[in-house]
Amino acid sequence: MKEIRIGILGFGTVGAGVVEGIQKNGALMAERTGIHPVVVKIADLDMTTDRGIALPEGVLTTDAMSVIADENIDLIVELIGGTTIARTFMLEALKLGKPVITANKALLADHGEELYQTARDNHTGIYYEAAVGGGIPILRSQRAGLVGNQIESIYGILNGTCNYILTRMEREGLPFDEILADAQQLGYAETPPDLDIDGVDTAHKAVILASMAYGAPVPMDACPVQGIRGLADQEISNADELGYRIKLLAIIKGNAGEVELSVEPAFVPKTHMIASVDDAFNAVFVKGDMVGDTMYYGRGAGRSPTGSAVIGDIMEAAADKLHGIGTPVSVTMMLQKDELKYGSPANIEKRCYIRLSLLDRPESMDKVTEILGRHHIGIASVTQKQGPKKGYASVVVLTHKAKEAEFVAAIDEINVLKVSDADPIRMRIEDFE
Amino acid sequence: MKEIRIGILGFGTVGAGVVEGIQKNGALMAERTGIHPVVVKIADLDMTTDRGIALPEGVLTTDAMSVIADENIDLIVELIGGTTIARTFMLEALKLGKPVITANKALLADHGEELYQTARDNHTGIYYEAAVGGGIPILRSQRAGLVGNQIESIYGILNGTCNYILTRMEREGLPFDEILADAQQLGYAETPPDLDIDGVDTAHKAVILASMAYGAPVPMDACPVQGIRGLADQEISNADELGYRIKLLAIIKGNAGEVELSVEPAFVPKTHMIASVDDAFNAVFVKGDMVGDTMYYGRGAGRSPTGSAVIGDIMEAAADKLHGIGTPVSVTMMLQKDELKYGSPANIEKRCYIRLSLLDRPESMDKVTEILGRHHIGIASVTQKQGPKKGYASVVVLTHKAKEAEFVAAIDEINVLKVSDADPIRMRIEDFE
Repeated sequence: MKEIRIGILGFGTVGAGVVEGIQKNGALMAERTGIHPVVVKIADLDMTTDRGIALPEGVLTTDAMSVIADENIDLIVELIGGTTIARTFMLEALKLGKPVITANKALLADHGEELYQTARDNHTGIYYEAAVGGGIPILRSQRAGLVGNQIESIYGILNGTCNYILTRMEREGLPFDEILADAQQLGYAETPPDLDIDGVDTAHKAVILASMAYGAPVPMDACPVQGIRGLADQEISNADELGYRIKLLAIIKGNAGEVELSVEPAFVPKTHMIASVDDAFNAVFVKGDMVGDTMYYGRGAGRSPTGSAVIGDIMEAAADKLHGIGTPVSVTMMLQKDELKYGSPANIEKRCYIRLSLLDRPESMDKVTEILGRHHIGIASVTQKQGPKKGYASVVVLTHKAKEAEFVAAIDEINVLKVSDADPIRMRIEDFE
Repeated sequence: MKEIRIGILGFGTVGAGVVEGIQKNGALMAERTGIHPVVVKIADLDMTTDRGIALPEGVLTTDAMSVIADENIDLIVELIGGTTIARTFMLEALKLGKPVITANKALLADHGEELYQTARDNHTGIYYEAAVGGGIPILRSQRAGLVGNQIESIYGILNGTCNYILTRMEREGLPFDEILADAQQLGYAETPPDLDIDGVDTAHKAVILASMAYGAPVPMDACPVQGIRGLADQEISNADELGYRIKLLAIIKGNAGEVELSVEPAFVPKTHMIASVDDAFNAVFVKGDMVGDTMYYGRGAGRSPTGSAVIGDIMEAAADKLHGIGTPVSVTMMLQKDELKYGSPANIEKRCYIRLSLLDRPESMDKVTEILGRHHIGIASVTQKQGPKKGYASVVVLTHKAKEAEFVAAIDEINVLKVSDADPIRMRIEDFE
């Protein structure tokens, strides 16, 4: 039986989950893999909070650098989070040739290139399954199981907080702000909730998925981001009536050598698998040229699910270390190409849902139709209802596919129409084609 | 760039998919992994059928043994199928220390122990991702991503033919035999269809999943098997009305040190993710003690999806070979324990759906209730409809949890009641608790 000696930086929620998991299932893991995991040191500035875990004397320390440098430690688990001190620590460990396991999506999204390069230069690895989709083994599936596939598209529900809020808005018919406040009280949403509800956390994960799919670090500014803040319950109920559900999606497509990606709330058909993903669950839908449609589903966050992913990576890093593998595919796959080409967001073709508030006269819709037509936006359906404002109708248009730039221009024109009362609401319809 | 030289045994549907995939995406695979896959030889008795694939002169041969023995070949891909000659070839390759990649679930289910032992004795590996769930990377997820988890339960839709038939029965309201005949015509079901519709193919996959989860080869006779042959459309419509769908499930549970497994058609709540799996798709739902609920979804069969899984394994076997890893976790995980303990099928606790045809008199149901009560079977709901036979009512009982042995005994007693017309139909209700 071989032994792997682990140093953990950060003893918060996930750190505690990892230690608890190793204490509970370490013997089973050793039986399965032939490698016995031993937590040698844990660094955290907070030495007093009770995490409900008994540790031998001397394991907990405030000195992260001493853990990294400890010759008795084979690999480093970075669970501090953030992009400042975590970056410093990770670079330090890599430069000592020590593999680093991390759940830090923000750090990889912002500084991935530097980190992957440093790992490669020092013949070691970074393992980051836990950074995307929590406990779901999505990156492992993508890089190993689907290694023979050209990735055609990836659709992800990657933020449990947003999915929880959307699910409750649907079920309870209550407004966004009320559900958000309740979610914060229940611990399902952070305070402030910005990173989650504005889509940034989803975008961090999207660029990691896209980087792995297409072989080079994707910068955050290649990913237009729109969150769900202030989503009206009217959109939720309109979607329902039209046979759709609204999900905050990461959308990644490889299109004739160009990568298109975005994060945005989208209408998804109720009949599609990904529409069945409720509550705080995550799912990633991957389409490969050989395998066709696949989907991976599970808890996207939390002490034990994320801990499960970190432990999977610890055991992989341990095996790589013991077999002298040096730099693993999780790093080399991110550095296949120097640069990727990105489709211009303005050229992305999509279907849209557009809700308008129009003066209730026949000519109103004529004007809208004329503008859409001039911008090559075909209309798939129109439904009209009594609007909330007297004399105005609420009109919902579902379009055929058209270019994003045309939608933007058309909406600008509609906006200044005298018959149009409020700013039109527009959302993508994703048919997964 | 390193090179891996591949010998393929069997140039049928999947074999052609593998070769096609390597021809199309081999350069991409090399870029991702640093290993270039080269198909050196393909053995098949049929040298003439056009598979739509151009091969260099001399690659195709009828002599499988010469491919296995070829010193210029690093690893063997077994895609012949069956449990006779495929077993001989696989043992031969393993004894030469060559890793074997296979999609052969029947062979692993029937002779797994011998094969895994032979691989271990010869310091080499067997890679069999393609044997379960086609293109879905389920085994890799289970053994690597979830390595830190005790597996509490696994539920699988593992046979595309059955799921296709069930989906069409639901959608079209047509009887089993008619859909089966049509599925055979369309190539979705084999002729004869026995292995699929009688549940044996699902059971082959179930014992592989259970073996990996609990660490020893599970014999087929530990898995009671019931298929979907002759399923009445009345069950389909009753399930629908009661909020369920019928799926042919592999059910695997680890219960206080005992493994329970079975293959049977079951009522699953429409709200559960696995109920959304339609047509020929497969899905595996895995519950781990750390990760909680996870699900893996994709195409369970077919040239390219299964080819995708085989290629994933080829690249893993190649990396293992080049790094001198010897016997991989895919083999050692199956040999952790000498033997597993199995729960007695008679003791399994489950809920059931029971459909009875009863003489339409008040005392009929009294008699049934008395029998169920005596066998500690609680009633959750009863619905009664006009039966197809005059004077008889069709009565549907949903029960609370009770022991299988009690159900068997109770049904035996109901069967001989004078008020009971036809044999009661009984199916499991699975609540995924």
